[in-house]
Amino acid sequence: MIRPAELIEQKRDGGEHSPEGLAELILAYARDEVPDYQMAAWCMAVYFRGLTVAETDALTDAMIRSGETLDLGAALGRRVVDKHSTGGVGDKTSIAVGPIVAACGVPLGKMSGRGLGHTGGTLDKLESIPGYRVELTTEELVAQLRDVGMAIVGQTANLVPADKKLYALRDVTATVDVLPLIASSIMSKKLAAGADAIVLDVKVGDGAFVKTLDDARALAEQMRQIGVRAGRAVTCLLTDMDQPIGRAVGNALEIDEARDTVRGDGPGDFTELVLEACARLLAHSDLGIDVEEGRRRAETAVTDGSALEIFERWIRAQGGDPDPAALERAPVRRPVPASRDGIVTRLGALAIGTAALELGAGRRTKEDAVDHAVGVLCFAKRGDTVLAGDDLAEVHARDDASADRAVEDVLAAYELGDEAPPERGIVLDVVG
Amino acid sequence: MIRPAELIEQKRDGGEHSPEGLAELILAYARDEVPDYQMAAWCMAVYFRGLTVAETDALTDAMIRSGETLDLGAALGRRVVDKHSTGGVGDKTSIAVGPIVAACGVPLGKMSGRGLGHTGGTLDKLESIPGYRVELTTEELVAQLRDVGMAIVGQTANLVPADKKLYALRDVTATVDVLPLIASSIMSKKLAAGADAIVLDVKVGDGAFVKTLDDARALAEQMRQIGVRAGRAVTCLLTDMDQPIGRAVGNALEIDEARDTVRGDGPGDFTELVLEACARLLAHSDLGIDVEEGRRRAETAVTDGSALEIFERWIRAQGGDPDPAALERAPVRRPVPASRDGIVTRLGALAIGTAALELGAGRRTKEDAVDHAVGVLCFAKRGDTVLAGDDLAEVHARDDASADRAVEDVLAAYELGDEAPPERGIVLDVVG
Repeated sequence: MIRPAELIEQKRDGGEHSPEGLAELILAYARDEVPDYQMAAWCMAVYFRGLTVAETDALTDAMIRSGETLDLGAALGRRVVDKHSTGGVGDKTSIAVGPIVAACGVPLGKMSGRGLGHTGGTLDKLESIPGYRVELTTEELVAQLRDVGMAIVGQTANLVPADKKLYALRDVTATVDVLPLIASSIMSKKLAAGADAIVLDVKVGDGAFVKTLDDARALAEQMRQIGVRAGRAVTCLLTDMDQPIGRAVGNALEIDEARDTVRGDGPGDFTELVLEACARLLAHSDLGIDVEEGRRRAETAVTDGSALEIFERWIRAQGGDPDPAALERAPVRRPVPASRDGIVTRLGALAIGTAALELGAGRRTKEDAVDHAVGVLCFAKRGDTVLAGDDLAEVHARDDASADRAVEDVLAAYELGDEAPPERGIVLDVVG
Repeated sequence: MIRPAELIEQKRDGGEHSPEGLAELILAYARDEVPDYQMAAWCMAVYFRGLTVAETDALTDAMIRSGETLDLGAALGRRVVDKHSTGGVGDKTSIAVGPIVAACGVPLGKMSGRGLGHTGGTLDKLESIPGYRVELTTEELVAQLRDVGMAIVGQTANLVPADKKLYALRDVTATVDVLPLIASSIMSKKLAAGADAIVLDVKVGDGAFVKTLDDARALAEQMRQIGVRAGRAVTCLLTDMDQPIGRAVGNALEIDEARDTVRGDGPGDFTELVLEACARLLAHSDLGIDVEEGRRRAETAVTDGSALEIFERWIRAQGGDPDPAALERAPVRRPVPASRDGIVTRLGALAIGTAALELGAGRRTKEDAVDHAVGVLCFAKRGDTVLAGDDLAEVHARDDASADRAVEDVLAAYELGDEAPPERGIVLDVVG
């Protein structure tokens, strides 16, 4: 029997847990045999002392062993790919990536989550599509991967239950921002969900929980190594989250934008991110192609309409109506005009994410309901030149009061200057 | 409303709480409105980040405000004194100090605790006296202070309930060894119990939780400052806990030794500690005397028999039988002979405390019962010269098996050499 207080003390004093000791702690916690208060103290000790590589692996492995696992590759007899983002503002990337990759003949199976705070969740965005079912049985999931080539579903209850419990605890004990715990939480879910190759999009900037490129690199390297040691192919993209991705922030608005991008009509930065992710996934697939060829095939799938066809088949397969006209629209639309001539030097991702949250597009607490119709469209992005009176953005709101507030908030998120800011692409670096 | 997670984050990041914020956290915790897991994470953050002076004061004050308080001085119309030890092996100091101070005409009212692990508790020792009642009402306590001049009682349930709850949590989350939390825990109880002057005996060494003189000084200074800022007179003695205090370790055996010391027949080191504590308490009393005069009066009370008279009146007042013959004796006594000629260079306090615990004199967990009769008498102390076959110590046990084990353990606690260790008195330093 482990003595949790001794493990807490060991970590507090900078020691290293044995893999067995740490695994027993996590599995006992998952079985409700170790109380929350001991895990909370342990998490805080880990905040200050970190985890070694061996500890991070043992933690990840124990989390996976706390529940059931899938092996989609074995079920399909194909290499299955998966894509994950650490969370950002206006991040609908998976919704566009999935159909493009599937149109290239590579199955993509993704379990996704819901949003909290200023970052949205892919499931919330998909649920703005009337009829879309996020819950599939494993049999339905495998059948849809075989039939359509892709699926995005909610995480099943039995997948990595230890992570679910630990994450909820970390959320209320100021222990979310702990690199090895983040790496282990993300990777345990990805490994348990059974994809053979994974592209991880690590967001960096004011709207992400990772603020600096150095931290992002460290997290990316940790996650990649966990995956590699578990026998998976992993590439991490480090991407800009100082401004929102694309134009749309808000659930139905982002579905529009994802669909536009799948058919070649998306904003430049978002399109670049999507194609880069697709290229990396295809290079890890069983097609036997490199990144350049992956990029070419992804671009072709967009231009020849095959990606849009998969998009529509996928949405229908999960019970949804792929027609954009089926999406609910916000009753109040309000332009956000520029107050002067100038160049956009900054567009705060956190500020826009928070404005969307205030409009009702997100959740403050897990119990909140999401308003799928509301959000913000940011027409002007960093580096764009505008004239006084031009529409910088457009607020989609439920009522006038919330629209008024959001217009102010969105305006405050824009900084206009006279000199162009240094140019930088959305993909900042690639690890692996 | 406070957001506990924000306070945890603030402390985690090295920030300083507002006094109001911290008070609200503690009081909400005491009301069960903040869960244990959040307090556990906060305690671990405090382990790494510490508390400022203002935070320590606010914490202490909030703990006091979580329950009722006494004002013994106002109730008696006298300055009341109190004495506290941070806990050691063979520490029966208060039981000897109380009667001497009271015999000098100064009321001493003390609330005491039970033992855990290798350190004993004053209440457990007193309960080896048949009939001794540790629970008195406030009225009984005040009447006894007026009548006899002293009382040692258990802490009432309503005194500093936040500390009780927080201490139990720290005990199982590896957050006991946190200087400001220790200082605040001790001082909140002392301040709430209402004495005007307090002598704190900070134990230093292998049998204490404070291992170095520097740490002891830091803790002493913190506690003294808390007391001074609350308008109390406080002196801290830093005293040796590398070897047991006096000879006796074990409840009834320690009552014997305390009584012997009160009548001038105690071991040298323990007598020195007791008289020094008495002198400091008398110098803080309303007698208007200095430490030297306090020492003289304490010595007189011992030699003229007045302290022993108070000892017996006190025990009787609380329902006990002061006759040493009334104490239960262990059925098995076993000598621990020296294996060689030599000088005692070391007598491990922790080892002796643990041997006594194994004999049944202490508690491993709060639920354990205490065997009042068993324990160890250490005849030879550091610096004593012994011949092979001399009795180093004597084990008092419940049965042969535990006696055998204890003899081995006690023997192992002794180190015999050929050169005398450096001499050092039991009182290492005085702060304040």
